[in-house]
Amino acid sequence: MKDFQFYNPTRIVFGAGSIAKIKKLIPRKARVLMLYGGGSIKKNGVYMQVADALRKHELFEFGGIEPNPDYATLMKAVKLVKKNKIDFLLAVGGGSVIDGTKFIAAASLYQGEDPWDIVSQGAEVKKAVPFGVVLTLPATGSEMNHNAVISNRERREKESFGSEKVYPKFSILDPKVTYSLPKNQIRNGLVDAYVHILEQYLTYPVGADVQDRQAEGLLLAIHDIAQRALQTDPPDYDARANYMWVCSNALNHLIGSGVPQDWSTHGIGHTLTALYGLAHAESLAVVLPWLLWYKREQKQEKLLQFGYRVLDVKMQKYSERIDRTIEALAAFFQSMGMPTTLTAYGLDPDQVAIEVQAKLEEDNFVRGEHRDITPAAAADILRLSR
Amino acid sequence: MKDFQFYNPTRIVFGAGSIAKIKKLIPRKARVLMLYGGGSIKKNGVYMQVADALRKHELFEFGGIEPNPDYATLMKAVKLVKKNKIDFLLAVGGGSVIDGTKFIAAASLYQGEDPWDIVSQGAEVKKAVPFGVVLTLPATGSEMNHNAVISNRERREKESFGSEKVYPKFSILDPKVTYSLPKNQIRNGLVDAYVHILEQYLTYPVGADVQDRQAEGLLLAIHDIAQRALQTDPPDYDARANYMWVCSNALNHLIGSGVPQDWSTHGIGHTLTALYGLAHAESLAVVLPWLLWYKREQKQEKLLQFGYRVLDVKMQKYSERIDRTIEALAAFFQSMGMPTTLTAYGLDPDQVAIEVQAKLEEDNFVRGEHRDITPAAAADILRLSR
Repeated sequence: MKDFQFYNPTRIVFGAGSIAKIKKLIPRKARVLMLYGGGSIKKNGVYMQVADALRKHELFEFGGIEPNPDYATLMKAVKLVKKNKIDFLLAVGGGSVIDGTKFIAAASLYQGEDPWDIVSQGAEVKKAVPFGVVLTLPATGSEMNHNAVISNRERREKESFGSEKVYPKFSILDPKVTYSLPKNQIRNGLVDAYVHILEQYLTYPVGADVQDRQAEGLLLAIHDIAQRALQTDPPDYDARANYMWVCSNALNHLIGSGVPQDWSTHGIGHTLTALYGLAHAESLAVVLPWLLWYKREQKQEKLLQFGYRVLDVKMQKYSERIDRTIEALAAFFQSMGMPTTLTAYGLDPDQVAIEVQAKLEEDNFVRGEHRDITPAAAADILRLSR
Repeated sequence: MKDFQFYNPTRIVFGAGSIAKIKKLIPRKARVLMLYGGGSIKKNGVYMQVADALRKHELFEFGGIEPNPDYATLMKAVKLVKKNKIDFLLAVGGGSVIDGTKFIAAASLYQGEDPWDIVSQGAEVKKAVPFGVVLTLPATGSEMNHNAVISNRERREKESFGSEKVYPKFSILDPKVTYSLPKNQIRNGLVDAYVHILEQYLTYPVGADVQDRQAEGLLLAIHDIAQRALQTDPPDYDARANYMWVCSNALNHLIGSGVPQDWSTHGIGHTLTALYGLAHAESLAVVLPWLLWYKREQKQEKLLQFGYRVLDVKMQKYSERIDRTIEALAAFFQSMGMPTTLTAYGLDPDQVAIEVQAKLEEDNFVRGEHRDITPAAAADILRLSR
């Protein structure tokens, strides 16, 4: 096991009706800025629940945080924070709103010249405006970690930053808010969580039995509940609760402590999203099976373990197991209605490989637990996605 | 899934040599009181490592915290805290030292008349002296939770209390400090952790697939590493690391969130320890298999799931599986050298049943997820332990 530090002070408040509890979780005298995205929260009742709970607080709002939250948008919110002396933020949304709020929290109190340095230069976040979360779209795990991915459309950049100062003070997880989600968003959330777990698990073994078993447990839980979570008429409360909670646990730093991590599927996927507009989880599902096939020798031990313990791949011939494991993984994604090839989206893998390689070279891309997923390797992987 | 709150702000610093890091984790100007037990830390080098790391801090010490830490002893430390204006505590030890430190932290700043009220009356802990932990004996999980069990020998009481104010600020987990532990202490730690997991898992099902799979993952990890962790010549670093980390994860509130809990094995076990001097884990191992047998109908669904997923009990006849599951559990404890009957300690189960029942009646004992483990039920269970 590798050395590690684990620290996660976010308070999770979980259950139906828990949004009302923000009233007591946010200091009574705070000047609160509520942040949200495209306005779905006004249709599904979440906006009203929040407004009702905070009717005795001084409440401001800022809507319109887009998917892949943009620096320019977020800086408008920073202006609002400063102008109105906001001292508590409330992110009401999914990963983009939460990530955007993390940046706003840090940028509002940033003492340096250009807050974009936090993202692009890793400038230290010395303090941040405290914030809470009302989660509406379980997927990224941002509600229980200290990372954020921020885009800068003007500079054509998309980068992440992390700081202990941007842990949410609390996150409200009410499984019922998922009832209004369309099926493909639930599918995306489940696949995103599944891939988060694999990026922290399918690396080289370091004797971390506890983390391996924890990761496998979360994967198995996703298998347990996937079909029931996708059910919409009527939705299944427990399946939605497990879907919500597994997304947080997939990326709250716990299973990633003390083990190597990969994240090359995410890296390649981000570029597919940028160039072709695939949803984040869609981009992961067209990369991961092929990346595992491409790296099947280096990841051999963990692939065998994953197949045996999670996907029930137990035939005697070891030489067949890895292929069967990767097939079973792809079949699982497909069983949720998630395509696993570029061709399924009408994209030409050869053409995509060329374009993605060019973009990744521009970005000096190198990923993988062995730092061997170069732009050329990414192109080789994408050519397989057919 | 049941509603829950989860909050755990303890920072875990994990790895060989990590004791040296306390230097930066404890404020430079703090007046530090180091607390420890019987002095084994002076033999195994831990005391010197701590003293060396804190040589520039103002350091006081208080040794002699006994197993099942006693109110009278702890109040002596409280006096020392007040007299020397101590503002940071450092627990260097196992569960007893850490639990004792939690009480000292709370009692030192308690405003009410009698600090024992914190334990016996559940008086609110409004503030506590901040403290860190250097863990030397992995077992209880106290290094990563907010609970403590405190004895009051004068009043013949043993009670627990819990408060968010007594989370350790940090806990140092260096697997190498376990190298000097005798085998039976490692065995005890593994069994204690295993039973902690089962007390939060083997209850009635509430559709909490995530928590179930997390609990099963931790149990499987203990099976993975038990024999290697017991190896002493030479000790196996990774096995010790997993042993240490699984103990923390077994009782850090995560797998217990959103599910019913039992804790009757612990309740009965505490009385066996008090009356016959069995070590804590020894007392658990002579109760649990028989309690499960006694409650096999109510716990049927989870026992079948536990057998199938953890102990590989998969024969076709359902009616046989529960017996085989309980046998396999007892066999696992025995494989670590842990007896599972009262008779193995030369105790007469019928006599023990009478004496324990009398003591539990005195304490108005009622436990179990259905509140049906009464003193009479406990006696019935103990009679089976032969």
